[in-house]
Formats: sequence, C-alpha cells, structure tokens
Amino acid sequence: SRELLVLTYGALVAQLCKDYEKDEDVNTCLDRMGYGIGVRLIDDFLARSAVRKCHSYSETADVIAQVAFKMYLGVTPSVSCSSAAGNEFSLILDKNPLVDFVEELPAERASLCYCNLLCGVIRGALEMVHLAAEVTFLQDRLKGDPVTEIGITFLRKAEDRKHKRN
Amino acid sequence: SRELLVLTYGALVAQLCKDYEKDEDVNTCLDRMGYGIGVRLIDDFLARSAVRKCHSYSETADVIAQVAFKMYLGVTPSVSCSSAAGNEFSLILDKNPLVDFVEELPAERASLCYCNLLCGVIRGALEMVHLAAEVTFLQDRLKGDPVTEIGITFLRKAEDRKHKRN
Repeated sequence: SRELLVLTYGALVAQLCKDYEKDEDVNTCLDRMGYGIGVRLIDDFLARSAVRKCHSYSETADVIAQVAFKMYLGVTPSVSCSSAAGNEFSLILDKNPLVDFVEELPAERASLCYCNLLCGVIRGALEMVHLAAEVTFLQDRLKGDPVTEIGITFLRKAEDRKHKRN
Repeated sequence: SRELLVLTYGALVAQLCKDYEKDEDVNTCLDRMGYGIGVRLIDDFLARSAVRKCHSYSETADVIAQVAFKMYLGVTPSVSCSSAAGNEFSLILDKNPLVDFVEELPAERASLCYCNLLCGVIRGALEMVHLAAEVTFLQDRLKGDPVTEIGITFLRKAEDRKHKRN
C-alpha cells in the first residue's frame, strides 16, 4: 500500500498548494496535520514494533530511523548526532519514497517542504512518549541538496525528566 | 504503512471538508483525485501483481477485489454480479480499513462519501486498461448501511471492443 500512500500524499500536498498561496502556510499546515497523525500513529507503532523504553536521545533517534521509518516508509535513514550536548540528531535519507512521483518542485513553489508532514508526525509521536522536540528539514533533494536531512532537536534534558520523576 | 495511509487519507478528507461546504463537492473532488491516482497506480499494480489480461468483466471484477484490494488495502471484498447483462458488479466490504479511525460522520456531513477516492482510483485504473466504468458507493457502513458496497458498471460492451480490434 506504499504506492497508494505516496500518491494520496501527493494529492494532499497538491490540494494544500491550491488552498494556500504561500509555501510557508502549506508547510505549517503539513506539519500540523502530521502532528495530528503522529499522536495517533504512536499507538500502532508501539504495539507493532514492541520496542522498549529508550534510555537516551541517541537510542530514540535510532529507533525512529531503524524501526519507524522502516515500518512506515520502507527505508532506513542513517543517524548522526550533530551537537556536543547530545540532543540534536540528523536523519539522512538517501532515498525518500514519499517523493517517488515528484520530479521537481515548480519554480513558484521553491520554499515548499514537500514532506513536511513527516516532521509533524515525528514531533507528535515523540510528544506522546513525553519527549518534546523540534523537527525540521535541514536539506532536501527536491531543492537540489545532495541528500534529504531531517533534524531532530530534543528540547528537554534527560536530567529534567529524571528530576521530575523523583 | 497502511496506518500511515489511513491517517493521511483522513487528513486529506478533513482538509477538503474545510475547503468545500457541500458534501457533493467533497465527493467530486475525492473522485477526481482518485482518478488521478488510479491512472498512475495501474503501472505499479500490473508490474507487481503480474496479472494477465482479463477476458471478461467478471474476471476483471475478481482481480480488482482479490488482487488489487488485497495488495493496497489488505482486505478482499466479495464480488457479485448484479445485472443480467453481466456488466454490473458489486464489491462488498465487511471491513473497510480506510475508515479505521472514523467513528461516524458528523451530522452536517451526512452526504459525504468518505472513501470516494477509491471509486476514482478504480475508474482511473480501469481506464488505463481501456475499460470505461462508472464506480460509485451503493452502501456505506459509515452511513448506517449493513455493509459497504462499491458498484462498478462497465460502460462499453465486450462486443464493441472485440469489434474494434478486428
């Protein structure tokens, strides 16, 4: 059903592009929709993946890349940590199946984050396991970048959460 | 990725309900979008299913139900022929995964054909194999019917096509 997903997603983005003149508004809308999807998808993910509680941001980022992306999109991004503080990660996709039917962005849609729904999905799903995060596209092959890169910045320190529990 | 499809589809329908006041306009839009998806999805379907050319409408209806629905939605509707002329078929779904997250239609959306995209997908895909058809929902559990039933009426007679080939 992945092909059907990719084409349905394309129809959604096309509709939003009709609805909103500004790319920023489309991006915001996709992120918001993705958030709503993420907060519901997490139950399915936890039930089917049977992953255990993660004990570090690094472990969480690995689970997103190796289990969640694999399960829902059939690809496994590589993960790199991009901050000394250990709370910023990049998911790097060589191949992004969501854009399989997209040749390139039209010139008047140069600022569109076509796959911005994914950022919202990750943000929403993380929030349901009590992890606040900022998730944005840092690079996008659709915009001519060499790879597609999703940045995840975890906002609350592990120490804070620990403190809260005690 | 079926759950992600179902939720993404829900976001699409919700957006169209924001865009269009009248259910009929939403239904038309879903059908039109589905058509665009069907004409692209057929290549994927033929490549992956390796089905051979069908020699009757009945065979075609069976392939849609047993191969295509199974492949993309994970369910197999039952098929019945509903006309003496042999060109009208019903696909009957006991379970419709696309509505997994929908409890019921809101009162002000009583005429919405929530899954109307499917009709367009079938119509578009059939057109690419040179079969003109009308595809509509005849019953819908979301509207209180006992089952969900999609009606397919093939519009050109097999004889016409035969004649054309000779």
